This record gives sequence, C-alpha cells and structure tokens, in this order.
Amino acid sequence: MTNQGQTKRNIPLAPKETPFGLFLWGGREKFDRRKAILEAFIDNPIFSKKAVTLPSLARKDAWTRAALQSRELITLKLKNNWPHRQFMESIRFTDNMLPVQPQFRIFMSNLERQMSDEQKAIWIPKAERFEIFGSYSQTELGHGSNVRGIETTSTFDPATDEFVINSPTVSSTKFWIGATGIWATHSIVVARLIINGKEYGNHLFLTQLRNLDTQELMPGVEIYEMGPKVFQGMLGTDNGALRFHNVRVPRSQMLARNAQVLRDGMYVPPKNTKHSYGSMVTVRALMAEITGWDLLKAVTVAYHYTTFRKQFDHDKKGEETAVFNYASVRYRLLPLLAQATALVLVGQNIKRAYDRYTEEYLKTNDTSELEDLHLQTVGAKVYSTEITGHGVETCRIACGGHGYNAHSGFGRMYANSINAVTYEGDNYVVAQQVPRAILKHFKAKTESSLSSLSYLSFLRNDTTVAPIEVHSASDWLRRDTQRFVLEQRLVVLVQNHMDDTAAGKDTSFSTHALTMAHGDFVYWKGLWEVIDRSKNESFAPSLVALAQVFSLSILQNAHLTLIPPLALTGRQRRLLADAYRNALDDLAENHVAKVIDAYGFTEYELDSALARADQTPYEAFFEGAQKSEMNNMQHLWPMMVDTRRIWKRLEEEKDSGTVKSRL
Amino acid sequence: MTNQGQTKRNIPLAPKETPFGLFLWGGREKFDRRKAILEAFIDNPIFSKKAVTLPSLARKDAWTRAALQSRELITLKLKNNWPHRQFMESIRFTDNMLPVQPQFRIFMSNLERQMSDEQKAIWIPKAERFEIFGSYSQTELGHGSNVRGIETTSTFDPATDEFVINSPTVSSTKFWIGATGIWATHSIVVARLIINGKEYGNHLFLTQLRNLDTQELMPGVEIYEMGPKVFQGMLGTDNGALRFHNVRVPRSQMLARNAQVLRDGMYVPPKNTKHSYGSMVTVRALMAEITGWDLLKAVTVAYHYTTFRKQFDHDKKGEETAVFNYASVRYRLLPLLAQATALVLVGQNIKRAYDRYTEEYLKTNDTSELEDLHLQTVGAKVYSTEITGHGVETCRIACGGHGYNAHSGFGRMYANSINAVTYEGDNYVVAQQVPRAILKHFKAKTESSLSSLSYLSFLRNDTTVAPIEVHSASDWLRRDTQRFVLEQRLVVLVQNHMDDTAAGKDTSFSTHALTMAHGDFVYWKGLWEVIDRSKNESFAPSLVALAQVFSLSILQNAHLTLIPPLALTGRQRRLLADAYRNALDDLAENHVAKVIDAYGFTEYELDSALARADQTPYEAFFEGAQKSEMNNMQHLWPMMVDTRRIWKRLEEEKDSGTVKSRL
Repeated sequence: MTNQGQTKRNIPLAPKETPFGLFLWGGREKFDRRKAILEAFIDNPIFSKKAVTLPSLARKDAWTRAALQSRELITLKLKNNWPHRQFMESIRFTDNMLPVQPQFRIFMSNLERQMSDEQKAIWIPKAERFEIFGSYSQTELGHGSNVRGIETTSTFDPATDEFVINSPTVSSTKFWIGATGIWATHSIVVARLIINGKEYGNHLFLTQLRNLDTQELMPGVEIYEMGPKVFQGMLGTDNGALRFHNVRVPRSQMLARNAQVLRDGMYVPPKNTKHSYGSMVTVRALMAEITGWDLLKAVTVAYHYTTFRKQFDHDKKGEETAVFNYASVRYRLLPLLAQATALVLVGQNIKRAYDRYTEEYLKTNDTSELEDLHLQTVGAKVYSTEITGHGVETCRIACGGHGYNAHSGFGRMYANSINAVTYEGDNYVVAQQVPRAILKHFKAKTESSLSSLSYLSFLRNDTTVAPIEVHSASDWLRRDTQRFVLEQRLVVLVQNHMDDTAAGKDTSFSTHALTMAHGDFVYWKGLWEVIDRSKNESFAPSLVALAQVFSLSILQNAHLTLIPPLALTGRQRRLLADAYRNALDDLAENHVAKVIDAYGFTEYELDSALARADQTPYEAFFEGAQKSEMNNMQHLWPMMVDTRRIWKRLEEEKDSGTVKSRL
Repeated sequence: MTNQGQTKRNIPLAPKETPFGLFLWGGREKFDRRKAILEAFIDNPIFSKKAVTLPSLARKDAWTRAALQSRELITLKLKNNWPHRQFMESIRFTDNMLPVQPQFRIFMSNLERQMSDEQKAIWIPKAERFEIFGSYSQTELGHGSNVRGIETTSTFDPATDEFVINSPTVSSTKFWIGATGIWATHSIVVARLIINGKEYGNHLFLTQLRNLDTQELMPGVEIYEMGPKVFQGMLGTDNGALRFHNVRVPRSQMLARNAQVLRDGMYVPPKNTKHSYGSMVTVRALMAEITGWDLLKAVTVAYHYTTFRKQFDHDKKGEETAVFNYASVRYRLLPLLAQATALVLVGQNIKRAYDRYTEEYLKTNDTSELEDLHLQTVGAKVYSTEITGHGVETCRIACGGHGYNAHSGFGRMYANSINAVTYEGDNYVVAQQVPRAILKHFKAKTESSLSSLSYLSFLRNDTTVAPIEVHSASDWLRRDTQRFVLEQRLVVLVQNHMDDTAAGKDTSFSTHALTMAHGDFVYWKGLWEVIDRSKNESFAPSLVALAQVFSLSILQNAHLTLIPPLALTGRQRRLLADAYRNALDDLAENHVAKVIDAYGFTEYELDSALARADQTPYEAFFEGAQKSEMNNMQHLWPMMVDTRRIWKRLEEEKDSGTVKSRL
C-alpha cells in the first residue's frame, strides 16, 4: 500500500491573476477588491481561521469573536475609506457571518430607497460611519412569507406627533431579526399603520432599540436573543426576538419617500405601489449574484480532496485510484461545478440589470422595469438557492466519511447556505410567483416581449410538434436539440399547471418544479449568451466544456417529462447518456484543473482541512485531532474509573444483604 | 388576524397502548421496553432534555453530559438487571448518542461472534458488567470502505508469545473510532496479521488502550480525540484518532473463533471465510430496523407544527389556512410518513431474519444464509439511510424558516441520521454489491430462488411486453399495475447496467440508482405482504392508505425510466397524478391523525419546541429566546458603545493632524 500522506496539494495562498480568472470573478474591479480584502485579513489575528475550532466553542464565544471581528472591520473601513461594496464583500470572507452584516445590506439600502431626502440627510451619515447599528425587523413568529399577516401595529398619536408601536400577541413577536439580539441600536420596523382607528397597511418605522451610550434597551422595548440555529448555522448572528410595548417613534421617522403622514394625521398615499417589494428585490438580486460562489467553494474543496484520496485498484494496475476518477464522484461533482459557474455568470447579469434599474430609479422614480426584475430575481433566488444548498451537501457526501469531520468545513458551508431556501421567502411560496407571471403573459399574449417565455408559442398554436431527430451522441451537443427538450418540458408543465389551475387544484407543490424547469431554461440561455460573447477568449474551450456539462446535466432530468410521441426513444436516451459521459470525461480530462485554477480560491477562502497549502488532508485531520480541546478531560477520569467499579459495589451490597444503595 | 398562540397541541406525555400502536411498534415486548425506558428517563434530571440547550454548549460540556448519562445508564442496568436489548434501545432515547453506545452494539457482539469459547468465558462477563469499556477500531485515515487497504500491522513475536501492533504511517491512524477519544479501555483492533514476514490479511485483536485504575494511556498507545463533527453531529461521541507504537497484545487476545495462531507461530486458517463480513451485517441489520424511526419522529414533529401554523387565506374564507392543508406541505410530508412506515415494517422483518440466522449460527456455525442476508442488509442500509437522511431534512424545510431554529430539534435529527449514508460503508460503494449479486443470479439462472429478482425473467426471455392498460385513476391502485412499472423499470436499469459492464464502463454512479430502484421493489413487495397478513385488523384501512401513498409516491419517479412503447402516455401520467393526489387526500383526511396517534411519540421522544404538550410552538420558541444564554452579554456592551465612536476619534485625529492611530 502506498502511504497517501506524501502528496501535497496545490492550494494558492494569494489570488493569482489570469485572464480566465478575471473573467470568472466578474472583472478587474471585483478581483482587486477580493485581493485587498484578503491582504487585510490573512495576517490579522482577529480574522485568523486556523487559530480557533469554531464548532467546538460555546455559541456565545463564537458570537463574541464575530462581534470583535465587526469592530475590527469597522475600523478598517473607516481608516482606509473602504468603499461600501468592499466592506459588504469582506463580511463574506469571515467564517460565520457578522452582526454588522445588515448595516449596508438591508438597513442602509432601505434608508436610501425608502426615506425622503430630508430623512436621508440625517440618517445616512450616521449609518455610514457606524454611529448607529442597524437592522430590519419584518418577520414575526406568526408570519414570514405572508407579510399581509403582520400583526405589529404603529398607531399615530396626534397629541405628541408620534407613532406608538405595539406587539399585541406572542405571535406578533418580531423574530429572526438579524443582529438585533444584542447588537443593533436602530431597526427599521415593519408595522401596520393605524390613524384614527383606520388601517393603512404595512409601513416602515425607524425605531431606536438601545441607548447609544449604554447599550441598554429603550423604554418599552423587550428583546431576547433568539437562541441557536440548526447545524451551528449563522454563529455570528445574534437573531432577536422583539416585543414592543407602547414604544414611541417620532413622526419624522416613518420612512417617507413614498407614503407620508402629515402633522394633522392626514395620510398621503404613495404615488405608486410597486416600491413595496423593493427591499426583497434588492436582497434577492444580491443573492442571485453571490449564491453560486458558496457552491463553487464546496466543489473546489471536494475536488482537492477527491484528487488526493485513493481507494481501490479500479484499473487493476496494482495501485489505488484517486476517487475523483470514479464515475460515482465525477457524476456528482462536475455537474455542480458547471451549475455553479452558470449561477455565477448569469447571476452577475441579473445583478447588473438590478444596479442599472436602481440608479435610474433614484434619479427618476421610474419603476416600469421593477416587475420584470422582480420576476427574474424571484426565479433566480429559488433556482440558485436550491442548487447551492443541496449541492454543497452533495459535495460533502461525495467526500465519504471524512466529509462528516467538521474540519472539512462542509458543515459550516451547508449550515450557512441551506437556510436560503426558506429565508427571503420560502422557496415553495415564492416559486408560485413565476407561474403566475407566465400565465399573466400568456393571457395578455405578451410572451414575445420576454425571450425566456418563447416556449409559450407552442401552447398557443395547436400545431403538432415533430419528435426530435437525434442520431448520434454529438447531436445532443447542438443548441437546437437542447432547446427542444427544455422548451417542450415547459410546454408540458405549463399545460398541466393551467389545467390544474382551471380545475381549482392546489398547485403549490407542482409550481416548484415548474419554476426550477423555467430556471433551467433561463440559465441555459443566459450561459450560452455569455459564452457566445466570449468565444474569442483563450479560455473559451473550457467555458464550452462547462456549458455542455451544464446543459446535458439538466437534460438528464428534463427529457423525462416529455410525453409520447415526443418522449425519447431508448436509443436516444442511451445517446444522451453517452453524450453526458463524454462531456464529463472531456471536462475532467482537459478542463477541470484549468477551471479550478482560474477560480483560484485561496486556502483562506476555502478554510478546510481538505485544502491546505502545506498539509495533506490526512495531516490536517491528524493535526485537528492533536489540537482537540477534548484531549484535556483529565478531571473526568476518576468518574470513569469509578463507573467501572459500580458492578463490584452492587455485588458487595448484595452479598452483605444491604438494600440501601450507595450509588 | 387570529392570534395563533392559543391552540395547544395534542402531544402525549407517556406511551398510550392501542392495537394499532402495538402493531407498528413491533409487538408488546418492544412496546413495554419503550415504556419502561421512558419511565426511567422522564423524571431523571440527568436525562432531562428541557434543562439544557445543547446546541449552545461548548462541545466538551455536551460530551461531559453524555459521559454522566452513560454512568447513570450503567447504574440503571446493573441495579435493575435490564436486558442488554433494553440498555441498547435506551441509548436511542438520549439526545445525542453516548460513549457507552459501542459496548453492546459492536464491541460485545463481536466478542460473542468472533471469540473462541475460552476467550468468551474471560471477556464477556467483563464487558457485560462494564468492568472494561469497549470499542471497535477498523477505519483508518486512509481507508474506510476498502478494508483491504488497512495499513495497521500486527506482527507475531514468538519470543514473548505476543503480537506487536504498529501504525506505520499517518494514513494508518485509526480514525473515527467511536468512544475511544476519552472513554474506552479496550478496543477490537483490525490489523494485518504478519507471522515470520508473511501476511495473513486482517484479523481482530483485543487491545488494551487505557489503564483500568487511572484511565491513562497504555505504553505505546497514542490517542487524540478527533475533534468536532459537522452540524454538531454525535455530540455524545468522543471519536478517537489512534496510533500504535509497538503495542504488545498477548496471543490469547487475537479473536480466535475462526482463524488462530498457535504457540509456535503456526497459522490455522478459518474453516469458512464468510464470517468476515459478519460484523457489518450485524450493524446493518440493526440499521435496517431502526433507521425509519428517526424519519418518523421528524415527520411527526413537522405534522404537529404544520397543523398548527396558519398562513394565507387559501379558501378565501377570511381565515388563514393551516399549512398542512397546502399541497406544498402534504406532497412533502405524507410520502415520507408512508416511506418511514415501510422502512419500519419491512426493516423489522429483515432484523427478525438476521436474529434467526445468528441464533442458528451460534449453535451450528452454519453460514449458508449469510450471503443472502448480507445482500438484504446492504440493500436495506442504502435504501433506508438515503430516505431517512434526506427525508428528515425535507421535513425541516417543509416547516419553513422556523425549521432553522435549533429548538425545532431538526438540526439534531439531521446531524445524527445523514451520517449513515457514508458510515458502515459509503452508500455509493456498498450499493455496488446489489447489482453484483443480481448479475450473479442472472448468470447462474438462480433468480427464481429469490422473489425480489422476479423481474429478471423479462431479461431472459426475449418476449415482447405489451404496454400497460390503465384507463382510470383507480387502475393505479391495482397491485399488478404497480408491479408492472416497478419491474419494467428494473428491466431497463439492469439491461443498461449489463450493457455498460460489458462495454467496460464505470458503473459506480449508476448502480446507486439501480440499488434504490431494487429497494423500491423489495420494500413495495414487503410492505404489501405485511398488510396482507394484517387485513383483518381494525386498523387495516389506515395501513392500506399508507401503502397506496408509498406505492404511488415511488411510481411517480419509477415510470419515468420506462422507454417507448412502454413509456406512459400523457393520459396515463395524468391519471397517475390524479391517483396520487387522491391517495394523499385520503391519507390526510381520513387516516393521518390515526397513524400519528398510533405511533404516539411522546414529548420526551420528539424533543422539539414544535411538539410540546403544554405550549404552542410560538410559546416554546419565545421561551427558548427568553432562556438564551446570550441575553447576558453585558460585559461586551462597553465595547459596542465604543465601536460606535471610532468615527469620531478618527475625525478628531484628522483634525489635529495626528497620524498615529489610537485604535
């Protein structure tokens, strides 16, 4: 047997600039921000990842670390004038989220979009310089996705020119409020506005929670830290449970860019109502861009490990085979590498469209594009979080038993990504918005305005579609063949959806699959568009190899929905399986090393015993054991020794006739 | 809006005996053991589950709790003469596994099966009365599933009549060894036997690791506790990393029921070689029986919560609808309830067959049935652990955002069940044994000896199979229709597998799906056999409702593999979807409450804020927040206050021209 402990891995310590890398990372500007963040972090002991074993710590100690990291990050930003974006991105380089995370991502972004100019002049500078710590209080114990069910009230008191905020019930407790269990001093509270006994729906109120000089709770504010999350998720976030007992907020702190309340209690309604899902669109646009990166890191760690780990003599050559070379590993990891790349490249486009929209909106108040953007970001949120969350876990499981060792890092990765399938709207709930939009366009006959709805024309015309012509494996690499399957699947699913809807059936389960199928098509189109624009680049062949694996991996499932006579024949299925196998082999043999190298995640970013620059995975695991805090449990030894003598005492007692137990 | 905080849940505090319950729990004997264990646990403060929030603790404190629970359990067993089985089962009632878990499950069971009678006379009593603490050391850093790759050596030294055990490399470190980081005094070490320079393959050596009077390591034994597992899994297990440096074991401690080494170094080979996978069969037979229960608990918690939680006014009646009534929840939870029931009822049969075999083997050394049993338990291990692990997580996600709260208990459930897909043989590796056995029977034309291989006859005869006749939704309830789809799917998959194997292709990925498809068929047959034997019972209609949901849930996927002309028509697919919807509705409306009631998991067993006898889920979550240890972080308040003043200091410094930072 060879000693597997000899081969060192090729893991970079610092980002390496290559044309392919710059392209994947979304351009020089982003790449340079990443480089700057890593430079600031790597030698800073507060951000050291090897110094602590977070999963061994008590939760309060892990959070304390995150609070101290927040302080250091604030200092870094203020001293060095980091752009907001660099600050936000830097949080993603820490191990487990920080309490300062909501400051820009959801607190200040809402102030910017939802406050009047006068309000902004007061509050934005305070938020920017961290004079106040912000959060966003929407979700309640009783209501998450259904914001119309929110119970917290904000009643206008004309006598004092204030709003009075109340939580009437246990279920109205604001819950899951990030950074609010301990940290935040101010929160944007979503509450039902009441004036003179009349309800005006949900509005936002900038509410002070804690004394700025003491951190003590303000009068009437009751807050608890929510308690632990599953899987040690989000260790750096102090989620709050908040109740309000006649908490007074000045009228000037209702966010007033749209609706307003005048001094006399007169309600001025918003000019347009679309702004209401603005903040969800913001967060989802961010998610569309960044989610895929979480999956890429997991795939990279699994790649490094499975090319190291050897098991069984597959080729009977007298040497064990690297497990990456087994189909059981390749068929799990390589499609995820391709899917993650699609999420990143297409997601970047969605984020750019959102940024263009926001810039325009802040100038002109124009919301005409918001609906389409909303649809795109909802679809992207569902699609990207499902693939990423479950994909990260697939990477872990593909690493076998050692993936279950927390030093692998997969536990942290899964815990901090799978929650996205239920936050910012449970995927099964928000997925319903996609078919709703599809049907709306179908009824209005406006599908031609959106290229992602091209397939609706097949439903409109009762033309017969001829079965697909595929005669060789390479036919499956053709764009028109791939498009046929993806479109015809959607034809079946949308037809079923329309039939079910017409028959009054509950479609809340089936719409999830429809939204995912729609996502397959949108990302398939989007990925090839990106590639078409890059076809003269040196790395184009690797992109094409990734795109073929992406396309064929989704086709494996997509074709199953086709109904005779369009259902694939046995021969066509076998050819598809052949094409897929060839594409995986091509990616594995000719491109995967280049792709992993181009992404070039550093040891610091991967944070895994399976991806260390100076140690093999086995050496790193062994060192992890040597450092275990549980090697020092000597104080329990006498208890264990004594436990092994219990039988003897019991026998002696029995012998001496003693009934009374001495145990 | 209604205040959802009012409705209390109907969660039992103690097991309630009903005919249906006795049937599901596998008979009165088992039911009574469960009752006795709960009685011993519920009021015992050491086993209290509400007193601590385990996910908030430092890992060493969680383990300490498990060690003290082990001590208490040992006392209970010895004082009250608990049968071994009751002791083993009681460990599953604790929250996170115990270091004493391997004592009977893998340590003593191996002594019993692999020691000579003389050896047993010495060691079994010591193990039974916990005079020694045992473990089983097989897995190494470099080798898990591939036991032939094990590197640890045991060299016979005729001069002293001892074996000398060594770990030659880092990768030969015994790793993941349960209860061995701190607890165990003795371990059964798997090592390659070497006599006079000649290798004789893996053998088992009972090796003392720690001094019985002091708990100190024995000379030459190097042990570290491995470190944390992902998701806070197995908090009660101190997994060991072990290296041996010339550790001496008397010749009398090589387990000698089969092979032996004589005083002069002569090697006496085993009479039969089948015993070697005996211990894996043991553990897998146990797993087949118990895995489904983990899923049942998760489904029960999700059921209690989703029948409580209300969202959206689905029926436009002015009241919100319980989320259980949405298809998005029913389609996720109810098939899992049916599948878990199949796992339990069929798994009990596999375990009974194993128990019969063991009893016979200990009398007669007869191993003729071991091969079939091995196949059954491998298939059951892969099938039951995949469904359970992923099913538990589906339950959590179906509960939406609150499922991510650790107080829901789902984190613990997933962490402690998903590991089974990679331990006791990675499922992708062991799954390969099922097709291997299928092909062996096909080649030997012995498929008729096993009813689970009936479908092979379609491959043998080149007869044309006529497409299925289905004209109404209820046709899908017929056994012959269901069997047709399950068998014809296997025909396609086995044919593909044979073609791929013949073409020299790597089938290590595709065999997993084949093994799962085989499992579908085996459990489908097994479940209906159980039901046929129970058709006169009062609860038979509920069993049939479960079996139809089970059958139709697996058919939803199974039919997709059928190739034209056998592929279902569009109408047949719609009828299948209708039949499935009807079966789910029937189960939901008429049976699910009875089934949940019959299983009757107590509050103590469920251990979830979503299933408390005296609190609603919202009240329990709120109380969890009130009790959070992070409500007392006052010592960090000055740091936070000061952090909000950093901007000011920096501005002052700039103003005064100071360059030197005071931060």
